[in-house]
Amino acid sequence: METIVRSKTQEVIISPDQPTRIIGERINPTGKPKLAESLAKNDMSRVISLATSQVESGAAILDVNVGAAGVNEVELLPLAVQAVGQVTDLPLCLDSANPAALRAALQVYEGKALINSVNGEERSLEQVLPLVKEFGAAVIGLAMDDNGIPSDPAARLAVAKKIVERAESYGIPREDVMIDCLALSVCADSTAAKVTLQAIQMVREELGVNMTLGASNISFGLPDREAINDIFLAMTIAAGVNAPIVNPKFAQKAVLISDVLLGRDEFAMNYMTYYRSQK
Amino acid sequence: METIVRSKTQEVIISPDQPTRIIGERINPTGKPKLAESLAKNDMSRVISLATSQVESGAAILDVNVGAAGVNEVELLPLAVQAVGQVTDLPLCLDSANPAALRAALQVYEGKALINSVNGEERSLEQVLPLVKEFGAAVIGLAMDDNGIPSDPAARLAVAKKIVERAESYGIPREDVMIDCLALSVCADSTAAKVTLQAIQMVREELGVNMTLGASNISFGLPDREAINDIFLAMTIAAGVNAPIVNPKFAQKAVLISDVLLGRDEFAMNYMTYYRSQK
Repeated sequence: METIVRSKTQEVIISPDQPTRIIGERINPTGKPKLAESLAKNDMSRVISLATSQVESGAAILDVNVGAAGVNEVELLPLAVQAVGQVTDLPLCLDSANPAALRAALQVYEGKALINSVNGEERSLEQVLPLVKEFGAAVIGLAMDDNGIPSDPAARLAVAKKIVERAESYGIPREDVMIDCLALSVCADSTAAKVTLQAIQMVREELGVNMTLGASNISFGLPDREAINDIFLAMTIAAGVNAPIVNPKFAQKAVLISDVLLGRDEFAMNYMTYYRSQK
Repeated sequence: METIVRSKTQEVIISPDQPTRIIGERINPTGKPKLAESLAKNDMSRVISLATSQVESGAAILDVNVGAAGVNEVELLPLAVQAVGQVTDLPLCLDSANPAALRAALQVYEGKALINSVNGEERSLEQVLPLVKEFGAAVIGLAMDDNGIPSDPAARLAVAKKIVERAESYGIPREDVMIDCLALSVCADSTAAKVTLQAIQMVREELGVNMTLGASNISFGLPDREAINDIFLAMTIAAGVNAPIVNPKFAQKAVLISDVLLGRDEFAMNYMTYYRSQK
């Protein structure tokens, strides 16, 4: 199954047969007070530098999120999309909890965007899926609903199935829905990573859709987070995630090695190119 | 299912519910000319220092292999087993292709040893399994037979099944057979790691036995082998390997993180102890 996203000039195919695609997570003011501050002043310089650095670190798609205190997302998300478009032709992942902001950004985006996100809540399904259909976009479906994030992997699969089926009822093909099985800190709950891995395997087997994962939360609260993130990322990619949302600078190596090991990098050519560039 | 091995004073339980147990691979003269040379002179000083360093790096079991040119394994394997026993009480994995050497080592070993290895060849089954039964040992079964190492995961499973069933026909309980699905260099064949991972999943699902894996070969021929080994090890542990044969010094961190992520290290206590000891 292929999920295709596009900018004006570039197409990215997400599929189990393709190399893993990194969705760069860095354009997001959560936990970045300076970015939040500059966004509140409509200053796009930090957004632009984060876009550039993530392109250099091997991102295939860039997530764009401007949700911060004092920010009017409906005005600012389209501006950020246009600012990023000035420095890269990578396809974008439009990231907001505000449907009006998503609509405003979709109106200025040239290509087929990835929308981040819909979830299993009735209100979210009813607000976001019509936008996905209207703009011919692809969408990330989070495996959570009105009851929160299920602690049971089968329940996450059930939410994912509901999202995929509801999307189909809107005329959105299944291949345009990517599922995020959600990763919570393993420090707070020692079963957290295992539940996520099991949900990923179930979604792969039962739904066959492509999967993303906001993977970096897993290590929250533990030391040496990058090492933990690398190991978790490898496990999730082996289980079926093929477009994780991560910091490309830290994740690129683990992703490239995972692709070598999963037979998606013939003669390790991508890995060798990376290795030589790092010396 | 629990595989139990013992020294005179220590017991190690290998089970999916337990932390991953590292079998230290270093006491093996392959590729270590100085160790080979000292073994040929019946000098056990290097064997002893390799035992000590692996204990310090978190090995739970030590593999002991003395197969080198100019060495009489029947004489030397028992001597090496006794030498290692002078510096550690860890259970041992007696590693030889020579059944007479295995018998000689089993005669001096106090406890329940792990024998490395039997494979699916008729000759191997007929020579090794009676020893396993006679000494009440556990045994590693390699997923290969007279036709070599199958390139197809289902064929590796078939060999594993044959070994487990043949062992049972000798009165060896299934829990005393650990399977090694075998890892070959991904540099020579880009499907190598994927085939191993699939075979591991199949053995876990169909046979339910515990698994080891000589995992370090996977990166042969590629640069930054330690990084590749870490990622592969994590994937194999998530797939079902619970007692890999590796260099503990390099593998310990990836193993501890894998156990945190797979819910086998409550409150990340083992990981935190390790982390603090490294500072």
